[in-house]
Amino acid sequence: MSEYILVTGGAGYIGSHTVVDLLENGFCPVVVDNCVNAIVAEGHKTPESIRRIETITGEKVIFHNVDLCNKKDLESIFEKYKFSAIMHFAGLKSVNESVSNPMNYYEVNLGATINLIECMKAYNIFNIVFSSSATVYGIPERLPIDESHPVGNGITNPYGKTKYFIEEIFRDLAKAESQWKIILLRYFNPVGSHVSGLIGEDPQGPPNNLMPYVAQVAIGRRPILSIFGNDYDTPDGTGVRDFIHVVDLAKGHISALKHINEVCGCKAYNLGTGKGYSVLEAVEAFKEASNKDIPYKFAPRRLGDLGDVHADPTLAKKELNWTANWSLSRMCEDLWRWQTMNPTGYNPNEKI
Amino acid sequence: MSEYILVTGGAGYIGSHTVVDLLENGFCPVVVDNCVNAIVAEGHKTPESIRRIETITGEKVIFHNVDLCNKKDLESIFEKYKFSAIMHFAGLKSVNESVSNPMNYYEVNLGATINLIECMKAYNIFNIVFSSSATVYGIPERLPIDESHPVGNGITNPYGKTKYFIEEIFRDLAKAESQWKIILLRYFNPVGSHVSGLIGEDPQGPPNNLMPYVAQVAIGRRPILSIFGNDYDTPDGTGVRDFIHVVDLAKGHISALKHINEVCGCKAYNLGTGKGYSVLEAVEAFKEASNKDIPYKFAPRRLGDLGDVHADPTLAKKELNWTANWSLSRMCEDLWRWQTMNPTGYNPNEKI
Repeated sequence: MSEYILVTGGAGYIGSHTVVDLLENGFCPVVVDNCVNAIVAEGHKTPESIRRIETITGEKVIFHNVDLCNKKDLESIFEKYKFSAIMHFAGLKSVNESVSNPMNYYEVNLGATINLIECMKAYNIFNIVFSSSATVYGIPERLPIDESHPVGNGITNPYGKTKYFIEEIFRDLAKAESQWKIILLRYFNPVGSHVSGLIGEDPQGPPNNLMPYVAQVAIGRRPILSIFGNDYDTPDGTGVRDFIHVVDLAKGHISALKHINEVCGCKAYNLGTGKGYSVLEAVEAFKEASNKDIPYKFAPRRLGDLGDVHADPTLAKKELNWTANWSLSRMCEDLWRWQTMNPTGYNPNEKI
Repeated sequence: MSEYILVTGGAGYIGSHTVVDLLENGFCPVVVDNCVNAIVAEGHKTPESIRRIETITGEKVIFHNVDLCNKKDLESIFEKYKFSAIMHFAGLKSVNESVSNPMNYYEVNLGATINLIECMKAYNIFNIVFSSSATVYGIPERLPIDESHPVGNGITNPYGKTKYFIEEIFRDLAKAESQWKIILLRYFNPVGSHVSGLIGEDPQGPPNNLMPYVAQVAIGRRPILSIFGNDYDTPDGTGVRDFIHVVDLAKGHISALKHINEVCGCKAYNLGTGKGYSVLEAVEAFKEASNKDIPYKFAPRRLGDLGDVHADPTLAKKELNWTANWSLSRMCEDLWRWQTMNPTGYNPNEKI
């Protein structure tokens, strides 16, 4: 019998890649998603990303359209399956939107997580892997950033604050109740897609993140890339980020799941490559991978953006036996495959 | 026509004292409270503290037993009255309990506040005075603490974190939506009671705070006071706090309300006297006021307790035209009157 793993937000970018890996590792993922950011094709009840996972893996995926903010609906899922662990990806994720509509972020991201924790307690399930973010580190005091770096200082947007607040909630929970095994995975900058080109990142509206924007410029959906800030204290003046292949990131979740019983209480791990690339280097890599020109212009720094942010990933290597393997050029190749196979993402009716 | 002011948690210690002052200043408070920490006498629907306020003021107090976590019930209150402002006292408040049951604190304190904000938006009410706490400053970097002191670092318990998280939510809200006028009142250590001795602090179970414990020792409900830590870097080794008379604190809320239209966005004010007294000095003051012996013993420091915490209250003086007037001995006198008139608080059936 394979173990049931609840995957909240499993129809999303990182969730869907992890579901593929869960299936390939013999787990039985149960996906719940409210589909606010997922495309569901006409005549179907299952989001397109989940149907594509079924194509990739040849397996049926258990899916429930459930909003975690609805506690009763969530309880019905816990009633139905005996989970051995939870992977909690669900949450709103746009930095910009969180600044203009903070209440939505606080209500949804905190409310969903609090409901989830209470359901877990009610059903005696205490193992959870949470999608945190490098954003919890705020302004880096030192580089590379390891997990002992302070968190919570100088986070400039409500999205990032919800990640930090949820981390704090988990830490307090683990202090109060010894049965919990909680892994906080702090993502750096996920890029790329599954090698099949069938699943990938599908931003609704103009992308907030660099690489999806670059890919949309390459394919002609956007005329020009704006690079925000070329006066940072970095080799070429543009921001430096720790880009990580989404498939490497997904594998990090499987490693976390396999080692979760070794965790006492609540433990955070960086998921990054340890290598920083500048925005200009990333654009150049994508240009090579796609063989397309990427017109760009420099624009002023955005409030809250940082110069150099890259991970020290040694703790995840040591304790989870995980490292990122794939290069920036591989991320770009895979992203470009996804983009060319799905010029308008999961929605075939969207105008290019 | 007097203005309706919604007072959440108005049956509690600080809320009830503020309701008295609201009435005396010609406002019309509408109290909502779920009575989890309030005594309701047999045969009555209104908490005892509210009935005592009616005795003090000779006025009828509008009261609704509503849990802010129930959004529908809360909406029905907004439907019924057109509020000019909200005073938000409601929340769980035990530091110790928050450490052992953090989820309750996160769910109730954050959930109630998020619901309240959303109701306010739905009914176009944007003026709010929030009960924050000096605990948001964490470990003091300098003394006295003014409002520009960093917040959020080194808060050791979930109670304090909910206060800090709520402050952050209010700050983000005010940044996103310009119509808000939000005053965060950071309380130092409220002590004492109304001069009538009819209302006061009524801890359920052993008091978490020093002075109610001292008063219960004086009246014989507790055999001995434990003073946690006599090796702090303070003149006599015991902790130093900025004790403030609860009636002064209540007046600070009226001042905030009267000046709220001058506030742009979200603004924090300390409510303290600016003068620190040690635990031993406070015990001595109570001894004099009560003419009772207060046996005490020293015990180890409690995790998370701090040495010296006292306010710089000049901003509230300058901008709200408010200062604390009453001395520590007056606080002790008034507390002792409350304690002797109500040996078991609001519950006459409780064993001494």
